[in-house]
Amino acid sequence: MRIDILTVLPEMVEGPLNCSILARAQRKGLAEIVVHNLRDYTTNKHRKVDDYPFGGEAGMVMQVEPIDRAISALKEQRDYDEVIFTTPDGEMFDQPMANSMSLLNNVIILCGHYKGIDYRIREHLITKEISIGDYVLTGGEIPAVVIADAIVRLIPGVIGDEQSALSDSFQDNLLAPPVYSRPAEYKGWRVPDILLSGHQARIDEWRYEQALERTRRLRPDLLE
Amino acid sequence: MRIDILTVLPEMVEGPLNCSILARAQRKGLAEIVVHNLRDYTTNKHRKVDDYPFGGEAGMVMQVEPIDRAISALKEQRDYDEVIFTTPDGEMFDQPMANSMSLLNNVIILCGHYKGIDYRIREHLITKEISIGDYVLTGGEIPAVVIADAIVRLIPGVIGDEQSALSDSFQDNLLAPPVYSRPAEYKGWRVPDILLSGHQARIDEWRYEQALERTRRLRPDLLE
Repeated sequence: MRIDILTVLPEMVEGPLNCSILARAQRKGLAEIVVHNLRDYTTNKHRKVDDYPFGGEAGMVMQVEPIDRAISALKEQRDYDEVIFTTPDGEMFDQPMANSMSLLNNVIILCGHYKGIDYRIREHLITKEISIGDYVLTGGEIPAVVIADAIVRLIPGVIGDEQSALSDSFQDNLLAPPVYSRPAEYKGWRVPDILLSGHQARIDEWRYEQALERTRRLRPDLLE
Repeated sequence: MRIDILTVLPEMVEGPLNCSILARAQRKGLAEIVVHNLRDYTTNKHRKVDDYPFGGEAGMVMQVEPIDRAISALKEQRDYDEVIFTTPDGEMFDQPMANSMSLLNNVIILCGHYKGIDYRIREHLITKEISIGDYVLTGGEIPAVVIADAIVRLIPGVIGDEQSALSDSFQDNLLAPPVYSRPAEYKGWRVPDILLSGHQARIDEWRYEQALERTRRLRPDLLE
């Protein structure tokens, strides 16, 4: 899978993209994530990508031209399954969407910044608008990292032990059961006896009951 | 406002925290964000913070001791309003939560990683569990950045023009209206004439209608 991220702040995404699971996926050749600075697609000498909004309003707007040039340059090199824009009024990102996106081959993610992007970009160039949640952030950079992380870790082989991703919260519509590690007692706080019992079948049953109980209490909507 | 972030991967959060609005807020002295490496709170020579889960299962679990030591060390220095853990089964983060959290003085955000954290940490040390959305990520690092970004930008004086944050999506339960910038025509795609008209009152009315129409179409739940 290849993900091209278009941004005015490459330094905001490069750190997290080169850490942990995302770094490992790229080293293994299972994912290629390429960050493009939108300023490289400007034609003015100050490499300016934004301008005042029409109609007078606070904030600056990212202009259509450098974004169109960047997307066109990429499309000349390969076919893209989706050109994604991250925005709080997009379709809500969730685990089923992450699952299906992890099967795509080539994806562009455009990060908005400043007050917003020229709406013509959204009408003519974007194929999918995604929100990572009902809150407003400084820009689309962090949402792009969220999406990349959520989908790349689902690509087979990225997480060493595939069991690990399959037993995550949401994959079976249940929240994950509690986990514990050593020491068995710390400051009087004890691990549940069942987990120290060695009876694997009873442990598995306990885990399923805990997952079900936690889901009923915290997220009954997942069971509907 | 001070935010202490506890993580095993400081390099995953430091890039985004030192960019854009978050960097500006820190330079202006309006926010202080301190990243702590949990390995600095271990007592074993390999600085190991995780171990196998009790009861046999795939993945590693972050242990209670280094996290307890890190949180205790911080609490000795100042009072904290909340000790937050980012987890997909936490309370859903949204703009009203961001608004109220932007009024806090001192906050700790603990980033989970690997398969999860020892559940005793959640029972005894955490005061608030937050989810940034219904999807699973590699760790809590990116969610910690999401939360920091969403709340710091709301602190008065962080965004130059306060109008800019107040007219964001969600602040009035309406999605933002479309924005446009130069050129007025690009490849035959034209900016709506009204925005070029110079009639500010009619432009404001158009914007309100657009915001209302977009909210009705895309997010009718916000109007209920």
